[in-house]
Amino acid sequence: MMDTSVIEIRRLPNYQLVSTTDFFFPLVDDPFLMGRIACANVLSDMYSEGVTEVDNLLMILAASIDMPPNCRDIVTWKMIEGFRSLAEEAGSSVTGGQSIYNPWPIIGGTAMSVVPKERVLMPTGAIEGDVLVLTKPLGTQVAVNAFQWINIDERWSRISDVVSREQLERAFDISAMSMERLNRKAAELMWKHGAHAATDVTGFGILGHAEALARNQSESVSFVIHTLPVIRAMAGVDAKLQNLFRLVKGRSAETSGGLLICLPKENVGAFCSEIYEAEGWPAIVVGTVEGGDRSASIAADVEIKEL
Amino acid sequence: MMDTSVIEIRRLPNYQLVSTTDFFFPLVDDPFLMGRIACANVLSDMYSEGVTEVDNLLMILAASIDMPPNCRDIVTWKMIEGFRSLAEEAGSSVTGGQSIYNPWPIIGGTAMSVVPKERVLMPTGAIEGDVLVLTKPLGTQVAVNAFQWINIDERWSRISDVVSREQLERAFDISAMSMERLNRKAAELMWKHGAHAATDVTGFGILGHAEALARNQSESVSFVIHTLPVIRAMAGVDAKLQNLFRLVKGRSAETSGGLLICLPKENVGAFCSEIYEAEGWPAIVVGTVEGGDRSASIAADVEIKEL
Repeated sequence: MMDTSVIEIRRLPNYQLVSTTDFFFPLVDDPFLMGRIACANVLSDMYSEGVTEVDNLLMILAASIDMPPNCRDIVTWKMIEGFRSLAEEAGSSVTGGQSIYNPWPIIGGTAMSVVPKERVLMPTGAIEGDVLVLTKPLGTQVAVNAFQWINIDERWSRISDVVSREQLERAFDISAMSMERLNRKAAELMWKHGAHAATDVTGFGILGHAEALARNQSESVSFVIHTLPVIRAMAGVDAKLQNLFRLVKGRSAETSGGLLICLPKENVGAFCSEIYEAEGWPAIVVGTVEGGDRSASIAADVEIKEL
Repeated sequence: MMDTSVIEIRRLPNYQLVSTTDFFFPLVDDPFLMGRIACANVLSDMYSEGVTEVDNLLMILAASIDMPPNCRDIVTWKMIEGFRSLAEEAGSSVTGGQSIYNPWPIIGGTAMSVVPKERVLMPTGAIEGDVLVLTKPLGTQVAVNAFQWINIDERWSRISDVVSREQLERAFDISAMSMERLNRKAAELMWKHGAHAATDVTGFGILGHAEALARNQSESVSFVIHTLPVIRAMAGVDAKLQNLFRLVKGRSAETSGGLLICLPKENVGAFCSEIYEAEGWPAIVVGTVEGGDRSASIAADVEIKEL
């Protein structure tokens, strides 16, 4: 299990070709923002393996046949602009792609990079005593969905006693900023501070990705998650919905989520303070690596830390 | 204009990273065949630039929500198998991908390769006196569409006096074999016989791609197409349909079409006989490179050569 494809280049034995592809249906109304989120999401797989320099991206697009043509053109163009803008911020560029017409719009891409072998961080080196750090808060799926319910009376009435409109708007804004944020700085700091393994948190939730990462370890270790950093009020919303998204179970899907990183205990402080200084967002200690059977679990007395 | 993205690798100044992405909706009923056609179609862009060794492919898939789940699983799996099988025949492999649910099924992929700079055939070197060769016959779109009309009485009656069912079935079979055939051998022989430029013929038809290639030339040349190799009976079908597909205008879209290659005149004979010997399919001389204004045209007395 790796988040990307890593292959040997026959003609260049000391280098590897790292690539990944990811695409989905838009989940926010702003097409420029959506393009940025899609780009951050593709790049996140590269960063989770320590690939900080992405050579290029190809864009994968579908324009919706269900939109009026002039609206479709604007939306599609804004998505492309957003995607390109974040690719450039990442020090990369979009050098091609393809687009088709489809009932539903699609946005995503393929990222690739040629790197020396020793510059791919294999997700296999966790050892007992490591600390688990997560670089973005959880709860984006809850926030994005609940935000759309504000204008649907029947749905809004289900959650309006646990969250205010202002709180929900703020949760959505935090989610948006989080989803379009690159994990690049985190990837650089993984090298600097000797990370032992990492993955990015996306469709399977923090626990799903922790399980996959744990299964992959060389040593007989397990991951125990003792803290869930959650966007403010989102745990309450999900509880009110009878755990529809299973957020506090660690199963709520994230889009362009954070890196989940196994760090040597002594380096955690420096890692966290340097990433906060560079990005203005905290990385949070969420768990520990213990001896075990390559499983992952959430502690019974897990702390829900609202951000 | 190039059929692929070709970028310099910052860390490896003597190498280039060549990549391309292509995906579309299935056009034949057999999902295994469709997977093979989709793979040949993606690889064709690489071959048109002389990249004969493709390092890896990532698959792009959508499974149709409009199909019953058991049927959808079989169809999707067969498409994947077909795609993989042709990737292996091409000496490459599928090392990742993504799939989503979508109203319509989608199949395609991204191909990439790291090659020494001198192993990318720039599509710019045509000179006066060169000969244009095409490695696959034209008319796949006409055949694929007309074949589906056999069982639609109203449509079949429009063409049944110019083509028999047997002829149409044969035209479809030829199209299928042609679309799943790799242009790899052609790419190898381009190097051996000193090709000056090439492109692959796909959505814009032979004339559309000839125009794009001509526009791109360093020398002031133009391309004149004097022969259109067409799958037997398809020109008659299109004529009966009032040139719906504009086949003899050179505008009928092809899927996974042939390479259109500018070859030095003295090497054409050897190129054509070697490709026929290796593949059992003929490459056809379709035109000449003349002095001109970087345009392409079809001669007034163009010969329609049925295959």
